[in-house]
Amino acid sequence: MHYSVIIIGAGMAGIKTAGDLYKAGEKNTLILEARDRLGGRLKSEKATLNPEVSYDFGALWFHDGLQNPLFEKAKKLGNVNYFYDDGKYVYVSEDCKEVPAWDHERIIKDIDTFGQMYFQDPNHEDISVRELCSIYLEKHKSELTETQLKYAQQVVRLWLELWDGILWEYASAKHAFLWGVEHVGRNAYVQNGYRTVYQNELDELPQKYQKHNILLNTQVTHIDYSDKSNVTVTTSAGAVFTADYLVVTAPMSVLRIDDASDAQFIKWSPPLPARIANMMPECEYGSLGKVVFEFERCFWPEDVHRFYVLASELSAEGSARPWQNPTLIVNYKAMSNVPSLVCLTQDPVSKQIERMSPNEIWQLFEPIISQFATGKVEKPFNVLKTEWNNDPWIRGSYSAGRVGTQMTDDICAVMANGVSNRVRFAGAETMEGPSNGCAHGAFYSGEREARFILKHKKVNAKI
Amino acid sequence: MHYSVIIIGAGMAGIKTAGDLYKAGEKNTLILEARDRLGGRLKSEKATLNPEVSYDFGALWFHDGLQNPLFEKAKKLGNVNYFYDDGKYVYVSEDCKEVPAWDHERIIKDIDTFGQMYFQDPNHEDISVRELCSIYLEKHKSELTETQLKYAQQVVRLWLELWDGILWEYASAKHAFLWGVEHVGRNAYVQNGYRTVYQNELDELPQKYQKHNILLNTQVTHIDYSDKSNVTVTTSAGAVFTADYLVVTAPMSVLRIDDASDAQFIKWSPPLPARIANMMPECEYGSLGKVVFEFERCFWPEDVHRFYVLASELSAEGSARPWQNPTLIVNYKAMSNVPSLVCLTQDPVSKQIERMSPNEIWQLFEPIISQFATGKVEKPFNVLKTEWNNDPWIRGSYSAGRVGTQMTDDICAVMANGVSNRVRFAGAETMEGPSNGCAHGAFYSGEREARFILKHKKVNAKI
Repeated sequence: MHYSVIIIGAGMAGIKTAGDLYKAGEKNTLILEARDRLGGRLKSEKATLNPEVSYDFGALWFHDGLQNPLFEKAKKLGNVNYFYDDGKYVYVSEDCKEVPAWDHERIIKDIDTFGQMYFQDPNHEDISVRELCSIYLEKHKSELTETQLKYAQQVVRLWLELWDGILWEYASAKHAFLWGVEHVGRNAYVQNGYRTVYQNELDELPQKYQKHNILLNTQVTHIDYSDKSNVTVTTSAGAVFTADYLVVTAPMSVLRIDDASDAQFIKWSPPLPARIANMMPECEYGSLGKVVFEFERCFWPEDVHRFYVLASELSAEGSARPWQNPTLIVNYKAMSNVPSLVCLTQDPVSKQIERMSPNEIWQLFEPIISQFATGKVEKPFNVLKTEWNNDPWIRGSYSAGRVGTQMTDDICAVMANGVSNRVRFAGAETMEGPSNGCAHGAFYSGEREARFILKHKKVNAKI
Repeated sequence: MHYSVIIIGAGMAGIKTAGDLYKAGEKNTLILEARDRLGGRLKSEKATLNPEVSYDFGALWFHDGLQNPLFEKAKKLGNVNYFYDDGKYVYVSEDCKEVPAWDHERIIKDIDTFGQMYFQDPNHEDISVRELCSIYLEKHKSELTETQLKYAQQVVRLWLELWDGILWEYASAKHAFLWGVEHVGRNAYVQNGYRTVYQNELDELPQKYQKHNILLNTQVTHIDYSDKSNVTVTTSAGAVFTADYLVVTAPMSVLRIDDASDAQFIKWSPPLPARIANMMPECEYGSLGKVVFEFERCFWPEDVHRFYVLASELSAEGSARPWQNPTLIVNYKAMSNVPSLVCLTQDPVSKQIERMSPNEIWQLFEPIISQFATGKVEKPFNVLKTEWNNDPWIRGSYSAGRVGTQMTDDICAVMANGVSNRVRFAGAETMEGPSNGCAHGAFYSGEREARFILKHKKVNAKI
């Protein structure tokens, strides 16, 4: 079968590309999705006690609240419930039920400024976020209070690790402080599942298209772009499709696989150009995870939106222990009136939980939850967890800056440039700026590639 | 008498210029100071109950704590006591003893981002900070809580007015949000008086110089730079001095006087070039003030560094009433163990207090202080106040961006360029970047002009 455009991946980037093409009259397109479901890293599950409330295993916030097209559409359609969970928060540590925020929050900002200044010196090579914190603390220790010395770096670690999913001893200080992007507005938590946000985009495509032009369980194993005007795509089942254009939205973690024996390996003919192939090892992939504890009743403060759990240890080495790693716990009681706690975790905990039983997971978090409990601590009746690391189609969360790697915007520029005018990339990690790695970044990248193809076709038609 | 360099003004900029010139061997310089004292806007007074503690009527913080040469020197010499007063703070309003910070602090950041975005539209002309807040609140009211709607703009107003000394209905949103400069590090409060910081710079000049080459009570009334190689300066007493170079550190508020009958008018021959003269009306001068209440004992929380007092009214019109204007109250008990409160005020209160008796001033602040008192409120045994508006040599605090005026950096660029190679400007308001308007900005500007003159002299000597 020949198509005008073939799109690999039915995540946000893929359906946005197809949707924009469709609206412009380019209806003969095909989406190939390797999984048995739609949505990619947007995955919601209903709460047991209230099916109108959902837990999100992938994206869960609208970031850039002042400039987010998905959020704008959601508000316009009125079918996505959201909540600004940036209200009351509490820092919890092993030896303090409530670490006073005012004592260390200024230091976080100061470390950020210090990080920017550090790299003004051209002799300073990239170091880890952990090392940079040490340098700051060593230099300013005489001016800091005891609690600032104790907690400030743990708060930096919390934000870094739970945003990027990479350990602070591997995370690049250049990425974190020098190249950090300012977000555009507040974050709003999606209450009834990001699946509704995805559905809003999917519905831009007619039912008939959704039924016939999106193929699930269809893994691409070979991309042949040796012919100048035709791209040939072969699937693991041996099906062959050709198209004028190809848009690849597979994540970096799959694109970078260079082992031909790997089940997710994609063969490119000819091989990917050096500018792309050489860049692939620069693309570190972080690992974020979530644990959902569903309880019968709420035994913690109802008005606190988030509990920021500070670690007691500096390193994540060995098997996970309570208080070893920072955690962010979202209070669903405050947010959606459901007595659940959602714990955000990162490498290596996000990987370890995938091998742990519900009971083992509860043992890991019970001491932490007990620390801020106001009533008798009860066992959860249900434990849900993410399995993104075991998921062969994603193998982590999204890209993260490891020490010594290239600037994210540079990587995006290469990806956004595509392999050629006919073989393109889209996806949240191909968008530079604040939307990089976010659902609306995927949206923007789909918009970008649809526009590119429409324009290229028009110019070509004239010639 | 002929000098190599004449400097008008013995504030931080003036003595830094002289100090750097002296160190480079340029010792034949003269500083003319109109007042009967040194230091300009650096003015300290000792606390009644502890002479080792001082109140500062002008500059009182080291800003840019990570990059401030005055702070670095103070730390090295060890003779300046400082305190990071960025710890515990409380928002106080007329109807709430403690307005929860978490409810509105995110909104402040959001308004800031919104302000930056607003001016991305080239059709949007400059508006006031108050108007911009209204637009934000109107647009986002459905997403904001009741307290956010009530307090967020009052917090924006507090920061704006108490930083710039200009009412939010006149303050430029472009200056505040689009052109705002990021400060480099924390703020440290000087405990034993900024006079010690000034003294550290003054001591770079030998005693003999200080005694003979700094003339107090010497007002310059005429600057004649019609001769290419000589500048002639005439004083109100009729004394005439000539010099190869002139550095004018008089504040913008004096330089902009164009009324020849004004006692502080400076006549320029020839008149100032158009690029400078035309810019003068762009230089708005803000008005900040302070009231020091000295009490017998502390009857408020000892651990709170600052009380942020939010206004109940939106406009400052009419005579000052309690809760009409935002105020920042610094707790000297927390900072220096002295039972005093220092209230920072702004236009128009900073002007009104200059006409008020100590008793009237106490009546204005008593309801506010009572709101956060934890013990029986007692009358202060002493009330001190600033008189910068009545001071003919300053007439306010420092420059502030009024709606529709030029970018501060542009004004600085013109001033830093001087009248000619021989007639130069220095002062905190001539420094672009974060140090603008700060004591270390004055320091940098003196450094800049000394360097300029030394270089120009060297080049000229070769020719």
